[in-house]
Amino acid sequence: MARRIRIFDTTLRDGEQSPGASMNIEEKLEVAKQLARLKVDVIEAGFPISSQGDFDAVRAVAETVRGPAIAGLCRAADGDIDRAWEALKDAKTPVIHTFLATSDIHLEKKLKKTREQVLEMAVAAVKRAKGYTENVEFSAEDASRSDFAFLCQVVEAVIDAGATVVNIPDTVGYAIPSEFGALIANLYQSVPNIKKAIISVHCHNDLGLASANSLAAVMNGASQVECTINGIGERAGNAALEEIVMAIATRADLMDVKTAINTTEIHRASRLVSDVTGLVVQVNKAVVGANAFAHEAGIHQHGVLQDKRTYEIMDAEAVGLAHNKLVLGKHSGRHAFEDRLKTLGYHLNKIELDKAFERFKDLADKKKEIFDEDLETLAADEVRTIPAKYALEYMNVMTSLDGIPTATIRLKSDDVELVDAGIGVGSVDAVYKTIDKMVKAKYTLQDYIVKSVTGGTDALGEVTVKLEAPNGEIYTGRGSSLDIVAASVKAYINAINKLVHYEATRGDGGKRKDKPIL
Amino acid sequence: MARRIRIFDTTLRDGEQSPGASMNIEEKLEVAKQLARLKVDVIEAGFPISSQGDFDAVRAVAETVRGPAIAGLCRAADGDIDRAWEALKDAKTPVIHTFLATSDIHLEKKLKKTREQVLEMAVAAVKRAKGYTENVEFSAEDASRSDFAFLCQVVEAVIDAGATVVNIPDTVGYAIPSEFGALIANLYQSVPNIKKAIISVHCHNDLGLASANSLAAVMNGASQVECTINGIGERAGNAALEEIVMAIATRADLMDVKTAINTTEIHRASRLVSDVTGLVVQVNKAVVGANAFAHEAGIHQHGVLQDKRTYEIMDAEAVGLAHNKLVLGKHSGRHAFEDRLKTLGYHLNKIELDKAFERFKDLADKKKEIFDEDLETLAADEVRTIPAKYALEYMNVMTSLDGIPTATIRLKSDDVELVDAGIGVGSVDAVYKTIDKMVKAKYTLQDYIVKSVTGGTDALGEVTVKLEAPNGEIYTGRGSSLDIVAASVKAYINAINKLVHYEATRGDGGKRKDKPIL
Repeated sequence: MARRIRIFDTTLRDGEQSPGASMNIEEKLEVAKQLARLKVDVIEAGFPISSQGDFDAVRAVAETVRGPAIAGLCRAADGDIDRAWEALKDAKTPVIHTFLATSDIHLEKKLKKTREQVLEMAVAAVKRAKGYTENVEFSAEDASRSDFAFLCQVVEAVIDAGATVVNIPDTVGYAIPSEFGALIANLYQSVPNIKKAIISVHCHNDLGLASANSLAAVMNGASQVECTINGIGERAGNAALEEIVMAIATRADLMDVKTAINTTEIHRASRLVSDVTGLVVQVNKAVVGANAFAHEAGIHQHGVLQDKRTYEIMDAEAVGLAHNKLVLGKHSGRHAFEDRLKTLGYHLNKIELDKAFERFKDLADKKKEIFDEDLETLAADEVRTIPAKYALEYMNVMTSLDGIPTATIRLKSDDVELVDAGIGVGSVDAVYKTIDKMVKAKYTLQDYIVKSVTGGTDALGEVTVKLEAPNGEIYTGRGSSLDIVAASVKAYINAINKLVHYEATRGDGGKRKDKPIL
Repeated sequence: MARRIRIFDTTLRDGEQSPGASMNIEEKLEVAKQLARLKVDVIEAGFPISSQGDFDAVRAVAETVRGPAIAGLCRAADGDIDRAWEALKDAKTPVIHTFLATSDIHLEKKLKKTREQVLEMAVAAVKRAKGYTENVEFSAEDASRSDFAFLCQVVEAVIDAGATVVNIPDTVGYAIPSEFGALIANLYQSVPNIKKAIISVHCHNDLGLASANSLAAVMNGASQVECTINGIGERAGNAALEEIVMAIATRADLMDVKTAINTTEIHRASRLVSDVTGLVVQVNKAVVGANAFAHEAGIHQHGVLQDKRTYEIMDAEAVGLAHNKLVLGKHSGRHAFEDRLKTLGYHLNKIELDKAFERFKDLADKKKEIFDEDLETLAADEVRTIPAKYALEYMNVMTSLDGIPTATIRLKSDDVELVDAGIGVGSVDAVYKTIDKMVKAKYTLQDYIVKSVTGGTDALGEVTVKLEAPNGEIYTGRGSSLDIVAASVKAYINAINKLVHYEATRGDGGKRKDKPIL
């Protein structure tokens, strides 16, 4: 019978360490809920001691998300472990995940400790964690570059101390699959008590080998893979959940293992993570890229029409991509619209649906063909709404070659009308600088990302804006429109409204301080 | 001594099969020249019989690019092979690359041939090609899903017929590294004459394993890897050249092989291919992603400051990324500007330099910090200029919420002034629709892509526009500006000028017909 492989998702911890991928607590909760729908085994929700924001996010996920176990990361230090437990204690299945480097280069250059000291610290950390909960994972940071005999010693000692999971990370993305598979096989041969724990792997993608290394480990005995949606993470990222899961599903014949993942939620998870982080997925990304299931070549198309197995090893439907792409037009009714959204996985309440349908009719008037991507963009705009402190009532923008871009804006805020004009170096800059004069909140613009959703200039443009609050929290706003300037202003006001709302409804989130690597 | 691995680049053939990646002949030549600077061993320039455009591109590359061997693809059919030779014959080292599927599913569903017929066709194709040139490569399409005994029979027969390279493609991206490595090892054991040929591999990335499969093959005897810049290609793409090359360079200790690639040209090649195809590279792409050498985590940064080997296995300089990112400001002189561009690899002539410097001063007035990315964008705008049939003299755009976006445009064309106004569903749409009324050329807008080069709304926005001419040729225009509407209009006029120029200076390019897969 196929051996069961646990999927440990670290999108919210290692994934969030991608430069530019910071998520706030509400976004993390939204992602965690989608991970639960995916049926991952473990959600690593953050690194509680690193900041108040991380602590709050881990606690919120632990309190509200049911299904997966919830893990929090901590260094091998008492304060870290205690703080992690405080954040995790309301989870149904909490996991304390403590880590310590085992490679000589990390011992000498970073930790400035001897091997004996590191061994002691690792055992002490596991014992302390074990005082709080049964489920303790220990990670030997930079394991793939560690002295093998010492690594064996550490693994044996932490299992004796009670670690239920021992993780072997390829922290710097240095391993080659045959080598990494052999490392896991050798551990099984050399560590006497190894079968008392689950062996996990956590691979980075610096050489493009993270998924392959993870699979090689699985084929040599590892039973847990740590990965992220879209492969985001530190530097070139982590092993991509979608690649691991679909490789296991597609090659069950060879590997004789299985996961519990509901693969039809993969596409939605990918889109959600891309939306909240603003990190675009390239079209040729395996499994979740826009071209992954597209066929260009004539010969290829011919083959696919004859029998799709000639060139397809996976079904688009298996990852939750709807096959029938082009569906609705200006004559489509509300029922067809609602139906299509449901097929796409969007369950809107009546008010959200009313607003989305109104925007759909408006869009259908201006744009001949409405694609699923357009609908998803409309729906996503509605399901992530929060109370609007500021509502845009009027905007006029003029821009000309070598002229001075000028914007006129009227906002309504608590029944007060605010109106002003301003200039900028570009049309969007003029709009944003004008709004900055009218709004009381404090923030700085951290990122501004444009994508056109379905190609062409009569496409919906989608703009993502990230604002940084004085406490370091990031608020992401999104807006879509046929006009790129209008999409930009909507995104900006959406981000400002989120910032104002969440700053009012909870205490100071605390500036993020320090993050671990693995 | 380390065994030499040949790098066979197929960016211009399989890479161009990515939906949306079509390149015209000038763009293909530009990419081919960069591949020569990279020192790839073979450039596969196209599939000559598929269209007049592909034929012309292969012929142009064969005539002008020196250094790498130049390959052209053809099915195992007389007409295909003759046509390929016609395109290739002026190359210093031409390679005829003929292919035929060997898997039962392809034989039954696509070719409708028996194994005996396929064996005969393969041998006949190699013999015919051999009549033209010494260098003949045969690819057994869908090799990884072929019956092993039949595959051995085909490999032996084509080597006997004179094939100097035999390629074993994982056409559908189905293989797992340990399995694919074993396939290559078994071929070496089972095919008596195998050492008379070079064994090549060509892996697709459907499960995210293309690079790992290629490396597994290399470690089991393969001496040529087929790959593309940024891993573009059919569906989820091909093995990425940069991953293969940097894995071999970084893990020479384990693999004991080497390539001839000049790795410092990798970053420039990646950027060029992304620019001409419009296919964005995701930030967490291994080796060439924007975050590949960026460090977010506090602990990580601390480690890197102590000793960068703690978290870095490659130098950013090794792939041609300049380390000193922030350099110039408004007080920088022409000399510093020119110097920096040279460091970045841009060698502009005096006129180009004058124009780029003028734009730099203008940019420095409006934007506090000028990054290397900004400079590269300015330089790239200048080095790819062509005669301007249409010059933008005036543009004014008004857009407002719920209003009708309106543009006024004046163009100069051969000393005649054209002026008009028009409307659209968005500001960019209004500009484009107005220009469409003024310009005589025929085209349809195929794609419109926006990216902000360095984040923030006072960032340079870069717009890429693709126009399709009536004959099917694609013309890509690019424009950058602090104003997104201005960048959009520049890109559109740039694309129109290219289309007009190249249609006037050469015959009909011929509509692309049919493309192979592998």
